[in-house]
Amino acid sequence: MRRAGSNTAVVLLSGGLDSATALAIARSEGLACHALSVDYGQRHAAELLAAARVAAHLGAAEHRVMRVDLGGIGGSALTDPGIAVPEQPGSGIPVTYVPARNTVMLALALAWAEVLEAHEIIIGVNAVDYSGYPDCRPEFIAAFERLAQLATRAAVEGRQARIRAPLQDMGKAQIIRTGTRLGVDYGLTVSCYQADANGSACGHCDACRLRRAGFESAGVADPTPYRYDAHPAEGR
Amino acid sequence: MRRAGSNTAVVLLSGGLDSATALAIARSEGLACHALSVDYGQRHAAELLAAARVAAHLGAAEHRVMRVDLGGIGGSALTDPGIAVPEQPGSGIPVTYVPARNTVMLALALAWAEVLEAHEIIIGVNAVDYSGYPDCRPEFIAAFERLAQLATRAAVEGRQARIRAPLQDMGKAQIIRTGTRLGVDYGLTVSCYQADANGSACGHCDACRLRRAGFESAGVADPTPYRYDAHPAEGR
Repeated sequence: MRRAGSNTAVVLLSGGLDSATALAIARSEGLACHALSVDYGQRHAAELLAAARVAAHLGAAEHRVMRVDLGGIGGSALTDPGIAVPEQPGSGIPVTYVPARNTVMLALALAWAEVLEAHEIIIGVNAVDYSGYPDCRPEFIAAFERLAQLATRAAVEGRQARIRAPLQDMGKAQIIRTGTRLGVDYGLTVSCYQADANGSACGHCDACRLRRAGFESAGVADPTPYRYDAHPAEGR
Repeated sequence: MRRAGSNTAVVLLSGGLDSATALAIARSEGLACHALSVDYGQRHAAELLAAARVAAHLGAAEHRVMRVDLGGIGGSALTDPGIAVPEQPGSGIPVTYVPARNTVMLALALAWAEVLEAHEIIIGVNAVDYSGYPDCRPEFIAAFERLAQLATRAAVEGRQARIRAPLQDMGKAQIIRTGTRLGVDYGLTVSCYQADANGSACGHCDACRLRRAGFESAGVADPTPYRYDAHPAEGR
């Protein structure tokens, strides 16, 4: 299953708003996009269903789910049912941080990119309206790219995969405006850290707050299905 | 399950000779060693059984196997039954190279180390008597350490995990002499890329050739159970 790689990208796709926008940007550039979702034992499995919908919606060449059991080691509110998802803003890196998650996901993307001979790995991280996770920062992405230049046979043979974070410097409103212009149906995406199985959102967690504020600031109608107790933002 | 980390290490343990020696070195330093094996769909599953034996033999605090389906993406003789394991030396990086394997394994170790508050991640790579895999080289390990310093909450908060490759500059004979001195029973380890379910070795693949030459050069009796057609080295 080898492909000519100069037009091929692996796109990390969580099912959330950001990675859907990153995929839309890559598709708008004409890239053949191989979407990768990682099932790391997250409690919000609704995200993985959303990822499949988004991959189909945006015309990904294929969508693969790789499972890795980060849940077994715990250490995060997103993988350990014994740690509550906060519903109020706090200080510091929140307990929703998943140990080394983006390192693991980029490593898996790097493996697949090498087999596909893809020339780009695209990840929807951004560090403006974000939760302060260390592995969303530009210096982390740059360090991973330097690692990738040494890690693979492809790189040794001169076919490095570039690591791209096209949303890196965008705020949430700009991301939403960009995706809306590119035809993203954000109603298909799920951001909530404690989404129902059907994808309805709590409205209170960090991910919901950032998402809701983004739609308000962008002046775009928020299609998120909030639960009855979620005190939806005005304008919905 | 948090532990004081200053005496704690995560040790990547494949079941082969090198990682067993790395674990023995860490144990000889008095470290509490949490052994991590990664089931990435390798065809030589005998390695994982060997890893469990070695972890118990060398007194690891625990042994965890994480599964990740690199086999599904193919690209290596070690994960794709359609690609034969070479039985003659070739040139360049061999087809037994697994795309981004050490990046994936170190990423998983980094995640676990953060939860354990471990201060070291130990990997048994070496780049003297080796197969030329890019992710065994010192510059790769150094790049991963730089990445790890940016990737985790632990690092941001000043608790970096050091990445150690204690065998980095050793040849195979020196590795075997070191492990023998530390009491490693190499009869428990499996190196062969096409080992039987019971761990008996082909004697011809790259891993067997490096291992056999190492025992010969070290002047240590080779306890490897070779198959009847393996033309065992003299002295066995």
